[in-house]
Amino acid sequence: MTTEANPAGQNASAQPHFPEESAWGGVEDNMGDPEEVRVIFSALDSFSQYAKVAHFNVTHLRRRSFYALPQAQWQMLAGPPFNFLETLDKADAAIDSNAELARAILQSGLQAFQGMVDGPGGGVADARMPHEWSGVAKHLDIDKARSTIRQFYRDWTADGARERGASYGPIMKALAEEKSKTASDTPYKVLVPGAGLGRLVFDLCHAGFEAEGNEISYHQLIASSFILNECQGPEQFTIYPWVHTFSNHLTRESHLRGYKVPDVHPATALAAAGPDRGVMTMCASDFLCLYGDDEHKEQYDSVACSFFLDTAPNLIRYLEVIKHCLRPGGVLVNVGPLLWHFENNAPGNHGNDDDGDGDHDYKNSSGIADPGSFELANDEVMALLTRLGFVVEWLKTGIEAPYIQDRDSMLQTTYRANAWLARKPIP
Amino acid sequence: MTTEANPAGQNASAQPHFPEESAWGGVEDNMGDPEEVRVIFSALDSFSQYAKVAHFNVTHLRRRSFYALPQAQWQMLAGPPFNFLETLDKADAAIDSNAELARAILQSGLQAFQGMVDGPGGGVADARMPHEWSGVAKHLDIDKARSTIRQFYRDWTADGARERGASYGPIMKALAEEKSKTASDTPYKVLVPGAGLGRLVFDLCHAGFEAEGNEISYHQLIASSFILNECQGPEQFTIYPWVHTFSNHLTRESHLRGYKVPDVHPATALAAAGPDRGVMTMCASDFLCLYGDDEHKEQYDSVACSFFLDTAPNLIRYLEVIKHCLRPGGVLVNVGPLLWHFENNAPGNHGNDDDGDGDHDYKNSSGIADPGSFELANDEVMALLTRLGFVVEWLKTGIEAPYIQDRDSMLQTTYRANAWLARKPIP
Repeated sequence: MTTEANPAGQNASAQPHFPEESAWGGVEDNMGDPEEVRVIFSALDSFSQYAKVAHFNVTHLRRRSFYALPQAQWQMLAGPPFNFLETLDKADAAIDSNAELARAILQSGLQAFQGMVDGPGGGVADARMPHEWSGVAKHLDIDKARSTIRQFYRDWTADGARERGASYGPIMKALAEEKSKTASDTPYKVLVPGAGLGRLVFDLCHAGFEAEGNEISYHQLIASSFILNECQGPEQFTIYPWVHTFSNHLTRESHLRGYKVPDVHPATALAAAGPDRGVMTMCASDFLCLYGDDEHKEQYDSVACSFFLDTAPNLIRYLEVIKHCLRPGGVLVNVGPLLWHFENNAPGNHGNDDDGDGDHDYKNSSGIADPGSFELANDEVMALLTRLGFVVEWLKTGIEAPYIQDRDSMLQTTYRANAWLARKPIP
Repeated sequence: MTTEANPAGQNASAQPHFPEESAWGGVEDNMGDPEEVRVIFSALDSFSQYAKVAHFNVTHLRRRSFYALPQAQWQMLAGPPFNFLETLDKADAAIDSNAELARAILQSGLQAFQGMVDGPGGGVADARMPHEWSGVAKHLDIDKARSTIRQFYRDWTADGARERGASYGPIMKALAEEKSKTASDTPYKVLVPGAGLGRLVFDLCHAGFEAEGNEISYHQLIASSFILNECQGPEQFTIYPWVHTFSNHLTRESHLRGYKVPDVHPATALAAAGPDRGVMTMCASDFLCLYGDDEHKEQYDSVACSFFLDTAPNLIRYLEVIKHCLRPGGVLVNVGPLLWHFENNAPGNHGNDDDGDGDHDYKNSSGIADPGSFELANDEVMALLTRLGFVVEWLKTGIEAPYIQDRDSMLQTTYRANAWLARKPIP
């Protein structure tokens, strides 16, 4: 169930490299489940459809609305200094550039998963969407493909360093202090739930931690697997994260700004770090289902959450599982706002309790889809940590943390995140 | 078509007071149009439905999700320090308080419009939604009722002064300078398109301008008519603008903060201003349809736009109409971002041109619903002003302008608005 990153890059013999030796074992086990297969291929198909849908929404509809203007008006706007039709051509080119990354992610995912459908052994070098799955992605899937492309701005561009500094910085600093208290020859194991595109996992590994990322979204998993394991070098792609909206731009240059991806080549960087680097794994699962079992009990020195805890419909369960898999004396480090993801979309079968005892059955859990949800204010979250047996050592509020924010936009959305550290006591 | 505010409050003889002498004349003319009647009663019904829908979405669904938790969990959260069920009770009380304002707006609107349906003479003191229109409001209408209630935070609370200062402040300052250049015994006429809840119109009138507000949304028109003309005194209501979402709160007190409405009683304040105050009118119409005609040519010394220009599908038409109704030497003053409202929702019958000549027919225009749209960056907007014959005298960028923003929230959304002044030259 884990994807092991290849820190040696071209030197594929140093460690097993995806996809020759499949790293999607746990997922492979589920490929008999038709629903799981549908979710995977919907994610793959959404990357395949990104370009077509973006060209339609961003430029085709705009050309139509433009030519619906009175002729004298569109002719004026077509000329200098407006050059609106050239702007649409540049937007098309920017979407095509984004689509190169989308297609690379798709290829990587197809090679991993097509073989699982067709039989063992992995896919071919130039895999295509299987006919029966072409066009299966729904509107929401394609939205996720677009937001995944945009998310590379945050995790894998030089310009995104500011966002990473705000969100990952306090975590890296706290964990460095924790690690310094332990024996230097012992691996310090960090679990990162909601690992997304894997940058925090990579940064931790690069800094010498043994870092395990966990992620439930196949869009993110397929994209992170590509960038961590298969990308050929730094700045291989250029993304245009702001091209999809025409609002709030001061200048057209600002709207059509491109960013090189990735800012660092993971394999090269980890190889250069040499023996000081840690081991890196990425893991596809529902966090609640995987880490609550006996096998994961007290296995981690730290759990590091960036913009993750508020994805919980039920924060009690998240915190219980985190406490379960932390060793005594281990720490939960958190940075993020409280944007409760399920607040208008409560999961599960409300109030339906299969065995009728009104209690949660861990052995028969559907993980994040279990019924029940609630949303706390920050002071209540801190009280809950204490109630569940954590010791809160520090809390910092008001961290200015943008999230995929064009810093030149006339609309600035910035989280005032909290950072805190809570320790599982030694009995 | 104009609603004249009653600056004398209880002294109803000083000026005609809505609704005894109906101020909705222009609207009355349209009451034979079944579509117009449907839009009006959908807006009225949405205020009637606000409480029921808010109770359902905010607290009923949460109670259901809460009791779906394992019993030990919900019992813990029901006790101190969480008291989650008390929080839901407080949220219900806050919604009820919001609903008092919604019902007052509804009563005001029903008295104006019910009589128009039933016959001349206005409604009764305790009017009810006509049976045939009850329940006609759609989801989007009810959303608008909720956002209109929230909008009172911006326009009619003491705490909202910060937002008003950022958005209306530069306009008030620029217009005071313009007015000081004219003869003191001549009324200085300002048109405010997109007047919303009427606060900028009121502030201008209070400061001695002859101010005319224009608004297309019946939700806003009915609410502004109530607060300007019928509200009984300052702080008559308490609104809870943040109660509808449970995300990003530092404390529960912050989430459930109430604000008194209105911070000033319009009629009393205008009466106290005495002869120095101006005349105030509010006008229900599509800005493009009304102000482009011969009657409105060169009628205004200034057009003041706050968060309005980006509601244009076609900014050229907006600017042309503004220039048409400005006197030579008059000014367009603007504050706002460029959040193009129609960017993903282009209006009109794309490309359909009834008379086939490809040109806009002003005599057969459907106003804002005319086909064609485009979105410019700020530098292009400035170029367009020049191209259309305005002279841009100054531009200020980067004005921090929040819009119905809980300043204690862990999510801060702030516009970096532009302010500028463009003059229509004297030939």
